[in-house]
Amino acid sequence: MKIVLVGPGAMGLLFGGYLSRKNDVTLVGRDADRMNRIEREGVRIREADGREEIFHPHATADPGELKGAELVLLFVKAKDSKAALESVRHLLGPGTFLMTLQNGAGHEKLLLQFASKEQVIIGTTNQGSYKLDGTSVCHSGLGDTTLGAVSGSGEAFAPVAETFRECGFPCSLSGQVRGMIWNKLMINASSSVLSGILQMPQGYVVENEAAWNLARKLIREICAVAAAEGYPFAEEEQTERIKKHLENAPGGYTSVYADLKAGRITEVSAINGAVVEAGRRLGVPVPTHELILDMVRAMEGRGSGD
Amino acid sequence: MKIVLVGPGAMGLLFGGYLSRKNDVTLVGRDADRMNRIEREGVRIREADGREEIFHPHATADPGELKGAELVLLFVKAKDSKAALESVRHLLGPGTFLMTLQNGAGHEKLLLQFASKEQVIIGTTNQGSYKLDGTSVCHSGLGDTTLGAVSGSGEAFAPVAETFRECGFPCSLSGQVRGMIWNKLMINASSSVLSGILQMPQGYVVENEAAWNLARKLIREICAVAAAEGYPFAEEEQTERIKKHLENAPGGYTSVYADLKAGRITEVSAINGAVVEAGRRLGVPVPTHELILDMVRAMEGRGSGD
Repeated sequence: MKIVLVGPGAMGLLFGGYLSRKNDVTLVGRDADRMNRIEREGVRIREADGREEIFHPHATADPGELKGAELVLLFVKAKDSKAALESVRHLLGPGTFLMTLQNGAGHEKLLLQFASKEQVIIGTTNQGSYKLDGTSVCHSGLGDTTLGAVSGSGEAFAPVAETFRECGFPCSLSGQVRGMIWNKLMINASSSVLSGILQMPQGYVVENEAAWNLARKLIREICAVAAAEGYPFAEEEQTERIKKHLENAPGGYTSVYADLKAGRITEVSAINGAVVEAGRRLGVPVPTHELILDMVRAMEGRGSGD
Repeated sequence: MKIVLVGPGAMGLLFGGYLSRKNDVTLVGRDADRMNRIEREGVRIREADGREEIFHPHATADPGELKGAELVLLFVKAKDSKAALESVRHLLGPGTFLMTLQNGAGHEKLLLQFASKEQVIIGTTNQGSYKLDGTSVCHSGLGDTTLGAVSGSGEAFAPVAETFRECGFPCSLSGQVRGMIWNKLMINASSSVLSGILQMPQGYVVENEAAWNLARKLIREICAVAAAEGYPFAEEEQTERIKKHLENAPGGYTSVYADLKAGRITEVSAINGAVVEAGRRLGVPVPTHELILDMVRAMEGRGSGD
């Protein structure tokens, strides 16, 4: 399969590297030096057990030189999605699949401006990865990837799921993928972002009464928005699930934690931002998410000099 | 005047020291060693120009040994008010004035459980002070102190105001003192607390769009609660006033900033807590203050090991 992957961050390098085992993969990034280094030296992936392998996808900072693709895979941060899609618009033929595994919800809206419902694949993954340097990553999380259509069964995407499986990613299709995206958002937009704001490991969110109070408000609002979107979640059940998740791995740190600590822009605009956007669109009040979004943006604005 | 001052923090030492110029002042604190040191060595007050003076109020950790007072002055943190008042209850005769200059609003409710409306003095001060060590402070802020009654003109308190003036504190009576307390709260419960949460100087609150968005929501809710309390403030005017205040001293740091940085309990429970309490009592929604209160409590819960 001819695959173009835009956004060679930690997750992009992981997927781009493994998918290049059996596919013609090109990574597209903005940093020409780094793209040249990947083209020359390849992508190094270290497994949790220390085993390493080097893969050789193509890499370029100039997507204008590419011609056509069967699958365009979007892995940039949400704020860069639009510019990224514009830079590869010429690759999107009528038969090209356009896919996102980005965190957050609601990415399909933007993707549908560039391709039809029959082409747009949305999904969620429990794979995890963090950067070792500009061309290498550690594969830190194994887990299912679920793909689906904006509406309908998404059966037409079976070849894509098959390609993922062949390259080492457990992958299935689901007619409920948007519900699963909300399910993942439930943790990301509540305890993960609070752990980041508080600069404490995620277990603290359930241990501290005031923090857990905030988390429960966030979960309640997500449930209300998801229900209005057609995905009813039982609030008590979700609260209990997240509580267990935090108690099982109290020492875990989230990407929002790491980004705020380093003075970087976080993914909160795509995560809590998705809840705020959906809340406004559906007329569901989400004051806690609005406030958390402003709080994180105010923290991001401090920069890395703090 | 026979004065008992409970709570020998930075402000308590400043007022206790200067008031002892012309009054029989006893400081009451919990730390017996420190109280002994004050009794023995006095309170040292350094002015901003470097000039220093030592004062000799009495000091004790055992208020049970005291007999009667004309004025009991409360300077403890709000969370300790009740215990402090109970420890000096035996000093409160029918002619004793009971006074608070604590930050926050609504302290009168507790004071009225210990003394009558005719005895309770509430007030607000623009004096400022910070501790140099356990027995010395720097007098960092000069400014008016305004005293008044819970209701009415408070004329009966003229001798107290006179005593303050004689000892170096500009002081006046006002029939609008509760309104002035809300006025002071307007800054403390909005930009000051945000500067603390964000761990940035106060100017950042107006410079950063998201932070200013939060501040404006907090100001709006305070105006709504104050109006329901009978103190109408024009929201636009208050917002503009606070904006100017921040722009005039952008490098200023607040006590909430210092307390959170050091992992101490802040005064936010008395400040934003007063807004939340009044909002609930008056049926005015204050979701932003509720959230900020939980956020600060979650931050306080991290302790000083963070």
